[in-house]
Amino acid sequence: MNGELLSIIEVQKYFRAIHIMAMLLLGFGFLMVFVKRYGRSAITATFMLVSISIPLYFLKDSLGIFGGANSDIDRLILAEFGAASLLICAGAVLGRLKMYQYLLLGLLFVPCYALNEWLLLSGGLGLVSAGNFLDTGGSIVIHAFGALFGIGVAFSMTTMKEYETPIESDATSDRFSLLGSMVLWVFWPSFCAALVAPKDIPLTIVNVIFALCGSTLATYITSLKLRGKVSIADIANAALAGGVAIGSTCDKVSPTIALMIGLFAGALSTVGFAVIQSRFQAAIKKIDTCGVLHLHGLPGLFGGLAALIAVDGISMGAQIKGILITAVLAIISGLVVGKILALAGRRKVPYIDSEELIVD
Amino acid sequence: MNGELLSIIEVQKYFRAIHIMAMLLLGFGFLMVFVKRYGRSAITATFMLVSISIPLYFLKDSLGIFGGANSDIDRLILAEFGAASLLICAGAVLGRLKMYQYLLLGLLFVPCYALNEWLLLSGGLGLVSAGNFLDTGGSIVIHAFGALFGIGVAFSMTTMKEYETPIESDATSDRFSLLGSMVLWVFWPSFCAALVAPKDIPLTIVNVIFALCGSTLATYITSLKLRGKVSIADIANAALAGGVAIGSTCDKVSPTIALMIGLFAGALSTVGFAVIQSRFQAAIKKIDTCGVLHLHGLPGLFGGLAALIAVDGISMGAQIKGILITAVLAIISGLVVGKILALAGRRKVPYIDSEELIVD
Amino acid sequence: MNGELLSIIEVQKYFRAIHIMAMLLLGFGFLMVFVKRYGRSAITATFMLVSISIPLYFLKDSLGIFGGANSDIDRLILAEFGAASLLICAGAVLGRLKMYQYLLLGLLFVPCYALNEWLLLSGGLGLVSAGNFLDTGGSIVIHAFGALFGIGVAFSMTTMKEYETPIESDATSDRFSLLGSMVLWVFWPSFCAALVAPKDIPLTIVNVIFALCGSTLATYITSLKLRGKVSIADIANAALAGGVAIGSTCDKVSPTIALMIGLFAGALSTVGFAVIQSRFQAAIKKIDTCGVLHLHGLPGLFGGLAALIAVDGISMGAQIKGILITAVLAIISGLVVGKILALAGRRKVPYIDSEELIVD
Repeated sequence: MNGELLSIIEVQKYFRAIHIMAMLLLGFGFLMVFVKRYGRSAITATFMLVSISIPLYFLKDSLGIFGGANSDIDRLILAEFGAASLLICAGAVLGRLKMYQYLLLGLLFVPCYALNEWLLLSGGLGLVSAGNFLDTGGSIVIHAFGALFGIGVAFSMTTMKEYETPIESDATSDRFSLLGSMVLWVFWPSFCAALVAPKDIPLTIVNVIFALCGSTLATYITSLKLRGKVSIADIANAALAGGVAIGSTCDKVSPTIALMIGLFAGALSTVGFAVIQSRFQAAIKKIDTCGVLHLHGLPGLFGGLAALIAVDGISMGAQIKGILITAVLAIISGLVVGKILALAGRRKVPYIDSEELIVD
Repeated sequence: MNGELLSIIEVQKYFRAIHIMAMLLLGFGFLMVFVKRYGRSAITATFMLVSISIPLYFLKDSLGIFGGANSDIDRLILAEFGAASLLICAGAVLGRLKMYQYLLLGLLFVPCYALNEWLLLSGGLGLVSAGNFLDTGGSIVIHAFGALFGIGVAFSMTTMKEYETPIESDATSDRFSLLGSMVLWVFWPSFCAALVAPKDIPLTIVNVIFALCGSTLATYITSLKLRGKVSIADIANAALAGGVAIGSTCDKVSPTIALMIGLFAGALSTVGFAVIQSRFQAAIKKIDTCGVLHLHGLPGLFGGLAALIAVDGISMGAQIKGILITAVLAIISGLVVGKILALAGRRKVPYIDSEELIVD
Repeated sequence: MNGELLSIIEVQKYFRAIHIMAMLLLGFGFLMVFVKRYGRSAITATFMLVSISIPLYFLKDSLGIFGGANSDIDRLILAEFGAASLLICAGAVLGRLKMYQYLLLGLLFVPCYALNEWLLLSGGLGLVSAGNFLDTGGSIVIHAFGALFGIGVAFSMTTMKEYETPIESDATSDRFSLLGSMVLWVFWPSFCAALVAPKDIPLTIVNVIFALCGSTLATYITSLKLRGKVSIADIANAALAGGVAIGSTCDKVSPTIALMIGLFAGALSTVGFAVIQSRFQAAIKKIDTCGVLHLHGLPGLFGGLAALIAVDGISMGAQIKGILITAVLAIISGLVVGKILALAGRRKVPYIDSEELIVD
């Protein structure tokens, strides 16, 4: 292939990188605005987390730690994947960190993330042969890792007072949150297809959209059945679970299978939000502010496991080993990082802008 | 052309498909948030309508009903066009359907839409020779069809109580609605150019932007003249009428003609909102919640007819026949579907989230 | 290169043109929604300014005044650059113009802008040799010009009553403003790379993102240090200063230099908002509503000057001459245009929607 054509393909990757950036800032950022009195802080934190993690990932690459990307745009996309995982992680402790603690979280998270990425995808330490672990769109490496890391952090540092403080939303914070959710939905196909070769992109795009349609429909039905009325938190979150779950297999399965994966993921996620979340939190007396376990954790694990059934000729051993490594590494690093963050200070009151921002 | 190049062109189509998806969810979705106490439901309904109609359109194609697309991405774009038309239709009855009725509407709408599309664009039943009906960006097939279908549904099922219930907006719902309007404005060029060949895309893009500039300016002037002060509903809606009206001819006319089509469409649409809407609704005692007749119906019909004058060598017979088929088919199917929906249940109170959603 | 390939490259430019349009409407538009009771007017004004300036720029080109673009999409991008500069200018007087005065401002601004663009970039009047002035992403031609022009207009026409009227924001207007800010952040790489050749795009994209990361981090730290708590106005604005400042050199420097330019620009802009703005306004008894001097003016000038140090082999003379021409031309035209606008009428009360819009 000639140079002109290669440049054009790189430019197409950069367009996907911009779509992912829209997901990071507008998507994850506004999804987290659902906390009524912490919206401006959530957006500020999103800005901080993206701005610290992307240069840090480039620095890692330039130092030759844990492998490295083939081109600037590939590196940018991988850095964005890391930022997405970090934002998921931060969602678990949203409103309970001071602003500089988000920065510290970013500094500590990215190396752990890069280590796990290297172990699973680049054959690091020889644990999983490079190319054998299937996770094109990051169900495991991005979503499950970020969610389980976040649960670890939340477990280490949530105080009883924080556990007892209600997290409130209102009509306006809900609408902003739905805006973030829609931004994620719209650009999710570009997230999964970011590094896919041009000829495989059409199937990938259709699969992601089918999975999202499936989870959106399943969320509505499940939310209505479980709660009697539909919860907007379910819609804003669980509708996206198809995107999370299709990640591992997005370029391998048929649209029909993608739709089924989406339907199941949406139902699973809604059960998580409607049934599991309150019991789980009550059991551990800790808070997962955004319910990342139910949007990214369970659907991500399901997506990684679904590859075992849905994809012919998959390396079962590599797939299972990769999932276990991710789970163990994420939870342990999260627990340790939570302890470190707890040493770095405490908010006086959770979930309010006014502690760190000048408000009118 | 070699395979690499074809893949690249398919990827460019998928970028336009993503732009259209932004219009469907963020654009149409937030435009409908103008109803103060029904914003979260409007967004939920948008999610439902998109998620039911896209897989359904693919199913139609896979069953070989009413023709079929050449590739996965073409099929996705055509499915999105159908979803756009469905969202327009739903705008006419927004706030008066229960959530499952939106799903039912989607199930009933898509086959009718696909039939009309097949009759006009693929020579179905031999009524209009394939390729003779000019409607690149869907003024008739998408906008007018959706709007007239919606008017039919509204006619069949609006109750007197619903007619008498005021539809209220406030500063925040207005700002969300303007956000949706801007998303539609921004990505409209990709909507019209979605299936246009690469070499014709630059002219198409410029024409759509000129038409939108024209309608935006005309809306401001007309709204001010007719009402004394400017109405935000006019700005949020009629500013887009140029995009609706340029659809039929977007790849055929000069930018100057496009600007003129936009100016006229904006004025026409504003007259619709400022003058016709209240009289029309009072005459039939029915409500068109979003005024889709005035944003999509009249400007769409105008756009389809403008092709008769603005494009040399057009097949007059095919163009007029296509418009008539669309009008008749849309209104009749809409009336019938409205009756069916009315049998499927009734909301107790229109235009409020709390009937079906858990609200704080 | 063959025709197919050229068409594909034009289509890639159009995707960047759409990204820029998102910045113009959703970005600049919503950033200006921070004024609590003027949000709907700010968006309406944004619609007007874009819709008047883009066709006007095309008209200029078709009349052969001040040079002309090579293709329709290049012309569209240059017209959007002009619209961006106009929106920056309008930000200085936001809330103090009647709606038709924004249109008049657009009509008067575009010719001045096009003159400056022609002098600096096309060798107009032989003042600066074409190709010698470095400003790929418009730090000087777009940002500094618009800001200084706006300061000129504000100087000429702000009344004492307007000076004394407080400009208020609230939690909701802040969140909308942050939304606009994020849209600008996300799509800024496409703004700077809009007319860059495909092979230079990856470096440009990475540089812009690094500069934005730098300014975002610097803004947080500087705002906290200077004010004790973080100001959301700083975050929404100064976080973008890296994008402004990297414009001149975005395709020439290394990512490390880009990060440093961003860090400095963010700190400079925050000092502007936190320290300079109130003193400057008190000294001249005039108001720069959006603080465009501090977001676009100073960081833009800094970016143009940074090229002198950061880029090898730059023509020092051309760079300095270009900056001086821009500053003089912008301020003088702004002062004159402000006088003209003042003759065209006066608002009764600044910063409220209800003077010109129908509000509930």
